[in-house]
Amino acid sequence: MTILALETYNIHIGTIHESHIEWLRDKNYAGIAILMDENTAQHCWPKIEDLFAPFSPTLIKIQAGEINKTLESCQYIWQQLFDIQAGRRWCLINLGGGVIGDMGGFCASTFKRGIDFIQIPTTILSQVDASVGGKLGIDFYGVKNSIGVFQNPIAVWADPQFFETLPTREIRSGFAEILKHALIADAEQWEELLLISELNKIDWTSWVARSVSIKRSIVEEDPHEHGLRKALNFGHTIGHAVESYFLDTEKHLLHGEAIAIGMICEAWISVQQLGLREEELQEITSLLLWHYGHQFIPAGAYDELIATMKQDKKNTDARIAFSLLPAIGEVEPMETAEELVIMAALDFYNRLGH
Amino acid sequence: MTILALETYNIHIGTIHESHIEWLRDKNYAGIAILMDENTAQHCWPKIEDLFAPFSPTLIKIQAGEINKTLESCQYIWQQLFDIQAGRRWCLINLGGGVIGDMGGFCASTFKRGIDFIQIPTTILSQVDASVGGKLGIDFYGVKNSIGVFQNPIAVWADPQFFETLPTREIRSGFAEILKHALIADAEQWEELLLISELNKIDWTSWVARSVSIKRSIVEEDPHEHGLRKALNFGHTIGHAVESYFLDTEKHLLHGEAIAIGMICEAWISVQQLGLREEELQEITSLLLWHYGHQFIPAGAYDELIATMKQDKKNTDARIAFSLLPAIGEVEPMETAEELVIMAALDFYNRLGH
Repeated sequence: MTILALETYNIHIGTIHESHIEWLRDKNYAGIAILMDENTAQHCWPKIEDLFAPFSPTLIKIQAGEINKTLESCQYIWQQLFDIQAGRRWCLINLGGGVIGDMGGFCASTFKRGIDFIQIPTTILSQVDASVGGKLGIDFYGVKNSIGVFQNPIAVWADPQFFETLPTREIRSGFAEILKHALIADAEQWEELLLISELNKIDWTSWVARSVSIKRSIVEEDPHEHGLRKALNFGHTIGHAVESYFLDTEKHLLHGEAIAIGMICEAWISVQQLGLREEELQEITSLLLWHYGHQFIPAGAYDELIATMKQDKKNTDARIAFSLLPAIGEVEPMETAEELVIMAALDFYNRLGH
Repeated sequence: MTILALETYNIHIGTIHESHIEWLRDKNYAGIAILMDENTAQHCWPKIEDLFAPFSPTLIKIQAGEINKTLESCQYIWQQLFDIQAGRRWCLINLGGGVIGDMGGFCASTFKRGIDFIQIPTTILSQVDASVGGKLGIDFYGVKNSIGVFQNPIAVWADPQFFETLPTREIRSGFAEILKHALIADAEQWEELLLISELNKIDWTSWVARSVSIKRSIVEEDPHEHGLRKALNFGHTIGHAVESYFLDTEKHLLHGEAIAIGMICEAWISVQQLGLREEELQEITSLLLWHYGHQFIPAGAYDELIATMKQDKKNTDARIAFSLLPAIGEVEPMETAEELVIMAALDFYNRLGH
């Protein structure tokens, strides 16, 4: 097992076993509730259920999907906690992907002004992304993660055995965040990633640990996203908007699939504004299209996409904020781009589909 | 003006004037929104409106009253902030009593994972209580302050000129918290308070400053209420339940009126369990009845009151937690009491009305 010690909590990367449970027993909580969705209840919970039996935990189950990452779901979770008379010395364990972790963490952080919580991220995306940084929240008013808090869990248990339960598409989606971490911070990792053409042969424990290390070093320098941490948003300004747009259509994109589109567009903007080389753009574009294919974005959607980007939390004023790449492995976290440039980037992406 | 310097922010007690505005100008916010209710919009805002004119603030108005301290009101406030395209570099100013401060602070702390906020408490209660300690939140599922966070404002401006706008009943309600601070921590202050029979002749600036000092010294030792800070809950276990109960009837009690009932009941429990002297109970009872009169509590409501107390955040297990007085000016913050004792305390209070 790899244990990354952070200032305030540890991330355990490896199989959950008896030593985790002993640690939890020593915390002596008044009660334990476990939040899961219908998927993690069916596929993940059975893998660890026996370990937790001594705690007689209360299970709180919600429906899966980003579409349920809402204030309504929070109300349901809070009410469940009230109904079992959970107090401040309870612990909420969030078993699931990003939705469960973000929303469960937010509910724990606000229930009676905050109870402890443990994240057990079950997807690649949530293990390499949500496991570090303390960003919690829900979607509100059509804007992703627009209501939330910064709060650290007391522990993260990232167990790659759960990846066996994931569909291929979900695995590919999580891989996008590993690609992003390399693109913004580690050109050597990027070179290695270029060689991976099949995702079913990866040593995930190693890649999760390496990718988490990149995120950790960035977040620890700038926990509240005043500057450097914005680097992690590479691909996300356009990617989030694309993800929101497709949420309202029949063709839902997974987070990583949307971010892959965002990374291509924002790499193109990086060429125009920061001198990223055309060959590097070509390399990024080829690898991302190889893994994620192409998804046409209707020109009629551009205005809506731009409007969503204007609501982005990263913006410090009326301009749309970006993290861009001067080169692979380097990042400028405080850039902006004009609407016409953004539209041209979307055009560039669309042309790749012909 | 009295300025109490806390570790993370200052509390200015005195008239709001140009120096406040200069400080705010130096913060260079991208925008300023001011939350108020219909009462503070009418009575308080006109007193400071001209000072704020240079910022062209956006005003967000909600309906007054604890009954509106809900998630629905938060949704309205968040939506207003989105509609004016407020970003992370905005500041929300909360102009009002406890409801505005608690809820506005909670909305600011969760909007885009947190923006700065300034508290301008306009009632005595909110100046001596909510101005220190960072407790924010709303009522949910019938439980007061059950969803929220701990977060400090960047400043508190406590201006006694606003008391001129308060009805007598509101002033009396706020005075209860000053009495409470003396009861738990300062026997000399209590002796002085015994001499006050008319609230219209008080030097409020001085009393606010002295009372805030007590709260500050307690909160700074235990910001997250693991132990000592629970002392501040004297009168509040029963008081909150009584307040909740009357919320659902035609006879709304103000917070301080309910806490006065709670203090009498909990002083009686203190006699039974911690040896508070009968003469001290008598002194407390007389002064509180003098200021607050008597309000009969139907025996049929006892079960509901107990059920509410069981939901109290201060409980660490199934037992109902209390802060009790071994003597006037001293406090034991980690006590509990049995249901039968609590009911006997309510009976004691009810008999005082005969």
